[in-house]
Parts: sequence; C-alpha cells; structure tokens
Amino acid sequence: MERYVCGDCGHIYYSNPKVVVGSVVTHENKILLCRRAIEPRKGFWALPAGFLEENETPEDGAKREAKEEATCDIMLDGLLAVYSIARLSQVQLFYRARLAAPEFAPGTESLEVALFAWEDIPWTELAFPSVHWALNYYRETKDRDVFRPGSNPPS
Amino acid sequence: MERYVCGDCGHIYYSNPKVVVGSVVTHENKILLCRRAIEPRKGFWALPAGFLEENETPEDGAKREAKEEATCDIMLDGLLAVYSIARLSQVQLFYRARLAAPEFAPGTESLEVALFAWEDIPWTELAFPSVHWALNYYRETKDRDVFRPGSNPPS
Repeated sequence: MERYVCGDCGHIYYSNPKVVVGSVVTHENKILLCRRAIEPRKGFWALPAGFLEENETPEDGAKREAKEEATCDIMLDGLLAVYSIARLSQVQLFYRARLAAPEFAPGTESLEVALFAWEDIPWTELAFPSVHWALNYYRETKDRDVFRPGSNPPS
Repeated sequence: MERYVCGDCGHIYYSNPKVVVGSVVTHENKILLCRRAIEPRKGFWALPAGFLEENETPEDGAKREAKEEATCDIMLDGLLAVYSIARLSQVQLFYRARLAAPEFAPGTESLEVALFAWEDIPWTELAFPSVHWALNYYRETKDRDVFRPGSNPPS
C-alpha cells in the first residue's frame, strides 16, 4: 500500500475511503435536483450530496449539503440506500427527505435548482450513476415505511 | 479547519471521517465475539470490525475483518445498522452474517475468539458502545427479513 509521508516530520498520512452523504428531497410529489456549477460533471443534474466532514453525523452532513447546494432546510425520513464506489474509494449514504418549507435557491455550487415530477426528470443529463440508482430506489420504495436500504445494482 | 500540509511539496492532506465495517456473525444461534489483543480496549470483547480500506467495498471489508480477526469465512445477510461516532469522526456499518463453515481461530489482533449464546455474552466486558448497540439490534431484528437499519440510540 502506498502512503504519503511528510518529508519534514515523517508523519504518515493514511489515505482512507471517503463518505458521501446526500438525499432524495421531495415536495408535493416532486423531486429536488441541483444542476452542478462545479466539476466533475458541471452542468449536469444531481441530488444534493457531498463529502461528510470531520465530527459530523451523516444526517447532519446530508442536511448541510442540501443547505449549501439548494439553500433549503430538509427533514430526513430514514436511510434510503448505501452505495459503494470502490474505484473511487467512496461509500455513499442517501436519505429520504422532505423540504421543511417550499423554499430553495441555487447555492454557490449549483447553477440551478428545481423540483421535477417523475416523468420530467432529465435522465440523460444526470451527473452520476448513483443519482440514477437513488432516484429509482426512491421510486420503488416511496410508499413503504419499512424496507431494506438499497445497494449497488448488479454489475 | 486545520489541515496537514507537507513541508516539502505543499500537498494538502485532507482529514476525513473514517468508515468502520463489521458484522454480527452467528452460528447455530450463537454469536461470534473476538477478545481484543490490541489497544484500544485490549482484553475486551468486540464484534469483528475495523477500518474500511481504499478501493474496498464495505461488504468485502466486513469479510476481510472477520478473516483477519477470527480466521473465519462469513456470508453476509444484509445491512444491520449504521452508527455514527461524530466525536471520533467514524461512520460504522454493521452487517448480519453467518459462518460459512464452523471454523474460527484468533487472528493476530485477537487473544481469543468464541461463540456465545445470548445469555452468556460478557456484557460488562464489551469493548465499545456500538458493540452493545449492534448486538441488541441484531437480537431485536433477527427474525425479520425486512427492517430499517439500526442507528444510534437516543443520547
């Protein structure tokens, strides 16, 4: 395993997988998506999501990302799915959520934020595979109170 | 936010939350526990668990930890719980699992590995709070096929 070692002090910097937290946020049966203002996949639509920070719970991280990317307050409603992108060393946790108030606006990392009815989702302009997975699993489980969290589709 | 910067090259080393993966492994209605040979909590009993590595899926990580700590092969049976230890910047994923064969032995990080009936679990000698949480949630859900993954108890 390759490790970074500081040339000055010899401190070893372990390289670890990263945790991504995000949510499928709904309001009146529509789903909130953000059009990315930053790379990777600038201009494509994604769920509000991003890297979990130090000393933050995943739930707080998902709320913070919604606030940062869509300037909205959300209420979480349980874990939707856990996806693993081993190639990128990412573990992604997605939650079901609702808008706490019908107010949102693009944050600095978003070009645009909008609510989409299912049939209007811009499927060909989604940023990442896990956006597809989470949307479809949300759709599959949305009327269930208890369900297994989703995981990567068979590859 | 404090960041490590290499004195030689200026590379910034981001400090990120860490992912712990583990499992509640059962065999003939008994639960496998490992007595820790290393700090923290040397001498106390824990579930086979440890840090997820780069480019590893959480499921593969849970299997690897069981192999390393208890020299056993396990079959996973779904996500049991997601715990968050914000103070330590840890996200812990626990799976339900079964021994693939009735064979186990202490790995280098374990003093002892044993199967415990529920009433024989050494509750006062468990290593970490999340071992308690995962064991109790396993017990609560063990006869259910579909359930919500467990989360931290109310603090």
